[in-house]
Amino acid sequence: MKFKNRITNLLEIEKPVIQGGMVWASGWKLVSAVSNCGGLGLIGAGSMKPPLLEEHILKTQKATDKSFGVNIPLLRQDAEELVDVVIKNNVKIVFTSAGHPGKFIDKFKLAGIKVVHVVPAVKFGLKAESVGCDAIVGEGVEAGGHNGADEITTMALIPQLVDAVKIPVIAAGGIATGRQILSALALGAEGVQIGTAFAATKESGLHNNYKQKILEASDNSTILILKKLGMARALKTDFALKLLTAEQSCIDKDELREMLGKKKEMIGMFEGNLNDGIFEAGQSSGLINEIVSVKDLFASFENDFNLAFRSIYKMQINHAKEQRLESGK
Amino acid sequence: MKFKNRITNLLEIEKPVIQGGMVWASGWKLVSAVSNCGGLGLIGAGSMKPPLLEEHILKTQKATDKSFGVNIPLLRQDAEELVDVVIKNNVKIVFTSAGHPGKFIDKFKLAGIKVVHVVPAVKFGLKAESVGCDAIVGEGVEAGGHNGADEITTMALIPQLVDAVKIPVIAAGGIATGRQILSALALGAEGVQIGTAFAATKESGLHNNYKQKILEASDNSTILILKKLGMARALKTDFALKLLTAEQSCIDKDELREMLGKKKEMIGMFEGNLNDGIFEAGQSSGLINEIVSVKDLFASFENDFNLAFRSIYKMQINHAKEQRLESGK
Repeated sequence: MKFKNRITNLLEIEKPVIQGGMVWASGWKLVSAVSNCGGLGLIGAGSMKPPLLEEHILKTQKATDKSFGVNIPLLRQDAEELVDVVIKNNVKIVFTSAGHPGKFIDKFKLAGIKVVHVVPAVKFGLKAESVGCDAIVGEGVEAGGHNGADEITTMALIPQLVDAVKIPVIAAGGIATGRQILSALALGAEGVQIGTAFAATKESGLHNNYKQKILEASDNSTILILKKLGMARALKTDFALKLLTAEQSCIDKDELREMLGKKKEMIGMFEGNLNDGIFEAGQSSGLINEIVSVKDLFASFENDFNLAFRSIYKMQINHAKEQRLESGK
Repeated sequence: MKFKNRITNLLEIEKPVIQGGMVWASGWKLVSAVSNCGGLGLIGAGSMKPPLLEEHILKTQKATDKSFGVNIPLLRQDAEELVDVVIKNNVKIVFTSAGHPGKFIDKFKLAGIKVVHVVPAVKFGLKAESVGCDAIVGEGVEAGGHNGADEITTMALIPQLVDAVKIPVIAAGGIATGRQILSALALGAEGVQIGTAFAATKESGLHNNYKQKILEASDNSTILILKKLGMARALKTDFALKLLTAEQSCIDKDELREMLGKKKEMIGMFEGNLNDGIFEAGQSSGLINEIVSVKDLFASFENDFNLAFRSIYKMQINHAKEQRLESGK
């Protein structure tokens, strides 16, 4: 599963696997483990104040000499402070999401930083390209966490993005295994971004209750909640179902906001509160059956990728063999 | 793109491509054209009374000596009459959907008919296997027409189905190109079922207005409507948006049913009424840029499949080359 293409060149990695910069999950331990395996680790600045981000950058730089990056949600009020921390500490790769991709692009470019923006639909991909992003992540609605309103899936989105833009595309949403990495590359992506599978590794910063819930999950264990406030995919806990029922009964935004309360992602994913928290996760949760180290996860990606590749090859060879037998040659 | 696997063996086809048995679209012309290209054509009995189904079976048998089948929605009140027409006319393959897969399975098996059931989630796949179906179609929520309530996508669904059942799996939902066929096989599917791309071919029975709307569509041109009455994915026409707005304002089922009216699929897709009809279509609509013959569509599948396969191979070879150069060998 070692590749050379525009994404591996741009991000200076050997394997086309990027670990999503997830809130609470993606600190220096997870990030450096991923980068040391030949993928790209991303620090999730979404759950960090600027000084904590700096601490994680410094620790990551100590723990790996490989390429890594930082994910910055552009809607954060203190986004520019996060940007300045990244520039000051000589980080060379930034993934941006949730906001206008042009917001800090000149600043990033002046600092020699490569910028990748996350998009849920073709029109946003074109916008990211037009402001000068180096690549985009196309994220399907099966992904955990925040999602685009159009609810376009990975299978449908990636080929349409690849046809629409000239910059390289990374696929995200629903991917947790090596065969899905192969599948995404077949769609024209030159890399994949994986969230939930890394959130459930030993090195992830999330609470053990989160990881256990992922192990118990099946294909239909997640739902889209909070469509009116900023949609997210989360595990179907009692609290998430309560929110969904309220939304479906047409309560107004303010009531919903009150019912939601504050910091529910932290309370759920970081503190492990099963009653009152939100547990963001993707539809790939049902594919995750063991809490493993990042190293073992990469080994399983490779093994699964190679099996899938060979299996397709073999189905074609078997047909050719039969043709020869039938024609008596 | 010629294959030998459990699906090509079961359905006696050469290419692992099945044309969905879509209402109004899938008559003998489309079906025989697909089967003559080495895929599997399916007559869509959903829009046919028993005598019309018989007529289409007889015409298909005249137009091709290759394998073909019939799709029967099990919820139809006269489903058993459709089943009897199929048995009487010696059809050897039936795809069932929308209902309990065990409903007529004994009758089918006695007649030597191979039965494939369409499922939107793992639990339904396990049920289909347990009653004796020979294979299943796993259909992701990106597919046009009726969809499962769990809204699981093709990328997430197929590997989970493949892991859960022993019978072979066909992937459906969002697939309209050769690279997506490769992508689906990577996920462990042994064939694909394609709807919208065939609905927009020259041989499809749908109105030209439908085909034109597909050409105009982009990635975000479809929506899920009628979640309370039996969810379907359709083009975002004014009428579909009106239904969606009504649903979101929490009108009750009876009011919604009245607003919907009757036979809106026929009025839209068959009669071409752009104001008052419903146009079922998948998220792959944005990938369809030309109304072509089935033969040309198959040629493009093959070309695109081979390009994608070679491209992945090449990215790996390029890495290996670079490794050799770096090590000076």
